[in-house]
Amino acid sequence: MRLTATPLDLPLRHRFTIARHSVATQENVLVRVRWRGLEGLGEAAPMSFYGQTRRGCQRALERMGRRLQGRDPFELEDILADLRRRFPREPSAVAAVDMALHDLIGKKLRMPLWRYWGLDPERAPQTSFTIGIDTIEKVADKVREAERYPVLKIKLGVAHDLEIMREVRRLAPKKRLRVDANCGWSVKDAIAKAKVLEKLGVEFIEQPLPAGHNADLKRISQAIGIPLMADESSLTPEDLPGLVGCVAAINIKLVKCGGLREAMKMVQVARACGFKIMVGCMIESSVLITAAAHLAPLIDYADLDGNLLISKDPFRGVRIDRQARLLLPRDPGLGVVER
Amino acid sequence: MRLTATPLDLPLRHRFTIARHSVATQENVLVRVRWRGLEGLGEAAPMSFYGQTRRGCQRALERMGRRLQGRDPFELEDILADLRRRFPREPSAVAAVDMALHDLIGKKLRMPLWRYWGLDPERAPQTSFTIGIDTIEKVADKVREAERYPVLKIKLGVAHDLEIMREVRRLAPKKRLRVDANCGWSVKDAIAKAKVLEKLGVEFIEQPLPAGHNADLKRISQAIGIPLMADESSLTPEDLPGLVGCVAAINIKLVKCGGLREAMKMVQVARACGFKIMVGCMIESSVLITAAAHLAPLIDYADLDGNLLISKDPFRGVRIDRQARLLLPRDPGLGVVER
Repeated sequence: MRLTATPLDLPLRHRFTIARHSVATQENVLVRVRWRGLEGLGEAAPMSFYGQTRRGCQRALERMGRRLQGRDPFELEDILADLRRRFPREPSAVAAVDMALHDLIGKKLRMPLWRYWGLDPERAPQTSFTIGIDTIEKVADKVREAERYPVLKIKLGVAHDLEIMREVRRLAPKKRLRVDANCGWSVKDAIAKAKVLEKLGVEFIEQPLPAGHNADLKRISQAIGIPLMADESSLTPEDLPGLVGCVAAINIKLVKCGGLREAMKMVQVARACGFKIMVGCMIESSVLITAAAHLAPLIDYADLDGNLLISKDPFRGVRIDRQARLLLPRDPGLGVVER
Repeated sequence: MRLTATPLDLPLRHRFTIARHSVATQENVLVRVRWRGLEGLGEAAPMSFYGQTRRGCQRALERMGRRLQGRDPFELEDILADLRRRFPREPSAVAAVDMALHDLIGKKLRMPLWRYWGLDPERAPQTSFTIGIDTIEKVADKVREAERYPVLKIKLGVAHDLEIMREVRRLAPKKRLRVDANCGWSVKDAIAKAKVLEKLGVEFIEQPLPAGHNADLKRISQAIGIPLMADESSLTPEDLPGLVGCVAAINIKLVKCGGLREAMKMVQVARACGFKIMVGCMIESSVLITAAAHLAPLIDYADLDGNLLISKDPFRGVRIDRQARLLLPRDPGLGVVER
């Protein structure tokens, strides 16, 4: 197999702000793996929060490419275990390779990935649409623009969190609302804010605290009436057993865990632990979003809107229907094509 | 798909006795599922311990067969979730269908199941060979007969357990020895016997207590110097998170969990929980044994000797080398053929 990694710039429709940072153009990496006349696509979204840079990611991918020489995409287990071991700080780059291998397998077998996995694409849930942090006025504009999306995920973690949420609820009285504090709260904040959010009918609260505070998550869970979901606290399958009793749900992301194979493990472990499951994303093109969408038939909630937040997606893959339900492609592999 | 289920009698080389029962001929069920000119093989080994009978198993399989009409083996997730829900007391029958569907998928794609799963067959471990409960004299005969097997698993759970083990160790001073009490001990027994077993160099102790006593397993684990393995306590993926801290390892069996797809989930959950993994068996032909062997590249220990304990195996599939290492077949699907 032969791997190439090239920069993939994704300009955003709106500057995107969450509790800890703000971005106008997302700098991802596109991966192409060629094997026997076929091409597998992958994408990495380096996360500055974990000290990843696009440059470091590309360099890691070049080194990974050398390890793929003479191998075959069906050697998934060994190839990916080797990459995870050698590149523990570049899960997003490992995910890009993992995705490209799955794409190659599907293309070789001439079947969509969901079919290779034995899944029913009709079971995919709706995706939520994300509203970044902003002034009340601009949040209101974004909520109006998001009219077609029946489920909104609101980014919080600032002083005017509750004003934001009251305004969103006023403008969208019937929509399902979820909130994501991205580690931005204290235990006290979380308990106080949750009381108001409960009255506003919020469905769940994602990652109130920084990772590494499972006992505090448990305290919050016991004190409030809304389920908690882990995101930064649930990076890999091994993180999940320790979250039993602390959260009710987890958010799985390909770039956190290292790809589709690890994500599938997380689905199984989460079910055995009794968690509800969301699959989420970063700012991503339709390569990463479509890859993640293949897990959708197994999950409860989808937050796969990264490709809807960018202004020019160079790829086409998963689509959504009028209720924002994910429509998985019928083409082989990931089912992603260049526009 | 069209399913047929027929009796499969497996006469044993020696009457086989464990802590709770004894058998001369194992009464299993053979399943054939036909689809588009292909035939998928499966096998059920009804477990009297769980109130299963061959007749009940066959009847369940006939009803399952009706639910397969008009379906396609790639619809694994939905078909198997439906069967597990409708036949919660017949996991062995569900496993037979699951196996036949995996066999069909591999045959359709013209690849061995291990390749479909992305595994490296070279990573399969050795299998142990089981010595049933008997008089010291007969145990000694069996150990001599088992000369070619470098790893022995000794069934215990009787008054003369320690005499058996001293004799086995005397006759096999260099072999790796494992013991299985099949729920036959009390906490006191387990702690007392483990002290002697530790001196005899036993590698691990399987299921000392009846299922449902995780806290007692924890007490034993803390008191002894040999790792414990759960078997009757670890039937399904959902059983595993509750065993963290209670045992060091688990035994996965297709007939307990409902087949290959559930077994694969158990592997993932067990790894996330930090357990070592064994895949085990009942008295089974090469259909069930070979199916289970496809998981071998992912596990630490194999106890897949059910087909070695019978006198006439109507099938051929997985083989073992001189060190009793499992040699996975290269033929499509399960790679099992009739002799």
